[in-house]
Amino acid sequence: MSDLITPQTLKGFRDYLPTAMMARERLMEIARQVYRSYGFSPIDTPALEYANILLGKGGEESDKQLFRFIDSGERDVALRFDLTVPFARFTAEHLSEIGIPFKRYHLGTVWRGEKPQKGRYREFMQCDFDTIGTTSNAADIETLLVIHDLLVKIGFERFTVRVNNRMVLNGLLEKIGLIGQTSGVLRALDKLAKIGRDAVIAEMTDKVGTTPEQAAQVLDLASLTGSNTDILNRLEALLEGSEVGLQGVARLRELCAVSQAAGIPEERVQLDVSIARGLDYYTGTIYETFLTDMPGIGSICSGGRYDNLAGLFTKEKLPGVGASLGLDRLLAAMEELGLVDQTSTPAQVLIACFEAERLGDYCRIGRVLRQAGVGVEIFPDAKKVGQQLKYADRKGFRLALIAGSNEFAKGVWQVKDLKAMQQTEVAEADLVTHIQAALAK
Amino acid sequence: MSDLITPQTLKGFRDYLPTAMMARERLMEIARQVYRSYGFSPIDTPALEYANILLGKGGEESDKQLFRFIDSGERDVALRFDLTVPFARFTAEHLSEIGIPFKRYHLGTVWRGEKPQKGRYREFMQCDFDTIGTTSNAADIETLLVIHDLLVKIGFERFTVRVNNRMVLNGLLEKIGLIGQTSGVLRALDKLAKIGRDAVIAEMTDKVGTTPEQAAQVLDLASLTGSNTDILNRLEALLEGSEVGLQGVARLRELCAVSQAAGIPEERVQLDVSIARGLDYYTGTIYETFLTDMPGIGSICSGGRYDNLAGLFTKEKLPGVGASLGLDRLLAAMEELGLVDQTSTPAQVLIACFEAERLGDYCRIGRVLRQAGVGVEIFPDAKKVGQQLKYADRKGFRLALIAGSNEFAKGVWQVKDLKAMQQTEVAEADLVTHIQAALAK
Repeated sequence: MSDLITPQTLKGFRDYLPTAMMARERLMEIARQVYRSYGFSPIDTPALEYANILLGKGGEESDKQLFRFIDSGERDVALRFDLTVPFARFTAEHLSEIGIPFKRYHLGTVWRGEKPQKGRYREFMQCDFDTIGTTSNAADIETLLVIHDLLVKIGFERFTVRVNNRMVLNGLLEKIGLIGQTSGVLRALDKLAKIGRDAVIAEMTDKVGTTPEQAAQVLDLASLTGSNTDILNRLEALLEGSEVGLQGVARLRELCAVSQAAGIPEERVQLDVSIARGLDYYTGTIYETFLTDMPGIGSICSGGRYDNLAGLFTKEKLPGVGASLGLDRLLAAMEELGLVDQTSTPAQVLIACFEAERLGDYCRIGRVLRQAGVGVEIFPDAKKVGQQLKYADRKGFRLALIAGSNEFAKGVWQVKDLKAMQQTEVAEADLVTHIQAALAK
Repeated sequence: MSDLITPQTLKGFRDYLPTAMMARERLMEIARQVYRSYGFSPIDTPALEYANILLGKGGEESDKQLFRFIDSGERDVALRFDLTVPFARFTAEHLSEIGIPFKRYHLGTVWRGEKPQKGRYREFMQCDFDTIGTTSNAADIETLLVIHDLLVKIGFERFTVRVNNRMVLNGLLEKIGLIGQTSGVLRALDKLAKIGRDAVIAEMTDKVGTTPEQAAQVLDLASLTGSNTDILNRLEALLEGSEVGLQGVARLRELCAVSQAAGIPEERVQLDVSIARGLDYYTGTIYETFLTDMPGIGSICSGGRYDNLAGLFTKEKLPGVGASLGLDRLLAAMEELGLVDQTSTPAQVLIACFEAERLGDYCRIGRVLRQAGVGVEIFPDAKKVGQQLKYADRKGFRLALIAGSNEFAKGVWQVKDLKAMQQTEVAEADLVTHIQAALAK
């Protein structure tokens, strides 16, 4: 070949090398396990959809970011930018088959042509779970339990799931005569953490047209702090007379009580009346999840309750609740913080190729160990043992097995612990138990 | 909404509903487990690549089938049509980081705009594994072991991995003076099963320009049958004097001996000199895998040895060997043949919502069971128990747990076996053991 093609990925896209990919597969596997343990079933939908399915669903910004094109059959198509819109299309299309209530999870890649930033890519994986076809608070509470158990299984101890309910704010807006301005008020409120109380009040009075008193009342509500019980009691007093507001408080109260009864540590659930999460989609409980030691990456698992999942595709009204783990964003943060194991082999044992003509024995013992649940790689070339051990060390193998004519004559294997740098001679009959014990250490 | 958008997938694309997706996740998980147990590491690459990375790599047909477009940054891009070309680009780009030998697996979706057929879609998943950076026959033999163990883990007993080595045919062509006509001869030979011996001979003489005698010699070689030992002995005699041919035979002989030593049943490995697998890419061992009871779907796991993976991207010569499991094709066949479990829930236990105010207890016991490894769904609404049990039955739950005031007063749960239609009262302290035992049945 005279002209080589430059091997490069597209801007905003990345390869996953073994170390990162093993960490990613671990997160995916944990997500699947936890979702499944709560009875969520997996589904999958195509990466490509008719553009009209996706357009206008995530707002103007999202339309601009679509990877959209005309395919060879003259169809206007686009890559999915989230898993929610395909799920809405999916439920409308298959409702009679799936029935309700329906609980699904979906681990899938999505594409957004946004400006690439550190830790954010144009292709990333979302891990969504939703329960649809019920308005029961049991589903809202379960969403919290799933988020909690997911984070614990990943290995986090210090985190908080912040919970709010849109009905609380709606109740206040109703009470103070601002129900028509909900969108504007929420949009201003969403900026609270960024721009501060005074600027939010200014935006509410200047842009949304509230009185300074109304704005202050909204801010007072959103700024409530204290224990969950304190907040619930204060909200109940503030919302007296508003049916919808009190219903929101009652749902939050049940959420706190049941999650505690279910064994969730109280400090991991924090009512936070300031979180609003976007504008019109969510209608009830809302969730955001923050890692205490990585606040900078924002919420890593967010979601909420909505009234009508698939209104654009079917007349059937489908209320539901769910959340989404931002897996690749979490992974990027974990990589940056050195929380990813640097091993690059999924197997823990390397059998050295000491005498090439003994390959049958190496393969035989390899299969015996694999059947006992131990991952085993056999080095393919009869290179110097030192070179093979160097390879084992670089990849992160735990043990190396070495055997040549001497060992085969005696029916033994040399087992080398690559961390402790100790070598033990083990009879073949004891090999499986010996290795399992060594790896369990 | 006045105008509903028709919820539909693109032609040639499909949704995976829970039953199919659970079967698919099971296959994916087995593939990951088996690959990992042999020390293959996972990688991932973007779905989208620069078009020049992908063009011309799979032939004209493949170029025509590309989903290719100009992105919003005026880049000429396309969706990957296989995992081999991205792997070649990947190794050229990251060679210094990954080192050799390098063993990777890659489970990924690929897209081809082919004419949709029954069981074949424009989007499907491939599960590839490869060892690169070594010419050792140990890697070729391991490829066979991996294919074997993969099929066994999926649950198949009756299958054959057909193995050939390109060097055998090359040796013959060299010996009879046809080495310049290799491509044409292979192309004709590939049709043997379809069009029969006479038509292949006709094509070789008419189109490729061999003599009838030369064509007959090729066909005689390709038609060898008998035990693997018989075939090896016959080949050795036929190829006497051809170094390359005898080297091919020697590699096949070692493959048979070592795979037997490693415990692979002899009848599952069949030498077959007629398989050629495409034209120029493969240079050594070739594999095709057929299910005895589903011959119609063709080879479900194929691959081979190649000389130079990434010659278009780097001057570094990277020989390797690998194979690819056609996961979605296998799944489609399994669905058609009724081999897919019809359950649509990943959890086996349903806790009925008997008294809504007991949600805390339901959630508590749910988490206890999940921690013991039992998947548990809690029905969200306090509907009639009969309706909840109907739901459980439709989804395929094994057990239902029911408890109300009476049970809580006594500290017991009603455990209903949904298949045996038996109900047992179990003390809460014994619940985990009872349920584990019931599910183990």
